[in-house]
Amino acid sequence: MYLARIYITLKPTVNDPQGRTVLGSLHNLGFAAVTDVRVGKYLEVRVDETDPARAEAAVTEMCQKLLANPVIEQFRFDLEAEPPVVKIPPPSL
Amino acid sequence: MYLARIYITLKPTVNDPQGRTVLGSLHNLGFAAVTDVRVGKYLEVRVDETDPARAEAAVTEMCQKLLANPVIEQFRFDLEAEPPVVKIPPPSL
Repeated sequence: MYLARIYITLKPTVNDPQGRTVLGSLHNLGFAAVTDVRVGKYLEVRVDETDPARAEAAVTEMCQKLLANPVIEQFRFDLEAEPPVVKIPPPSL
Repeated sequence: MYLARIYITLKPTVNDPQGRTVLGSLHNLGFAAVTDVRVGKYLEVRVDETDPARAEAAVTEMCQKLLANPVIEQFRFDLEAEPPVVKIPPPSL
């Protein structure tokens, strides 16, 4: 079992109106020291694979096919091995 | 100048309908090994502070006041020192 932590951000050249709105709100709240805000997505995906190379390939394909928009977004992720979930049968009464 | 990378996720006990939708889509696309998806937010915030403790306090307050919903979300962040932006005056012609 692997946990993939996926970070999806707009490419640096793409305008980020959501980030600009958050920046304005932070300034209105008095956080004058904030100079830039970029908003992205963060996903935690659990993949039931034993081989890290296969898990990495699967997550890359997921990002390319569904999770990120390759025209305007870029992604990166890290994989963390997790112990497999052991299902304990209920005690027979 | 500090770059704060902020990760905002739903608390583990909170239902994540967006994550369930993504999970269903991944299964439909053939990614049968995926067992769980949680969707969160990722923000990059640049703070013009020289003292890391002040930057950390400011980012914590931003998360509590605006960026995260403390009822259903939790946040964490890391801070990275960045060289200050040096503004070079245009050459006088």
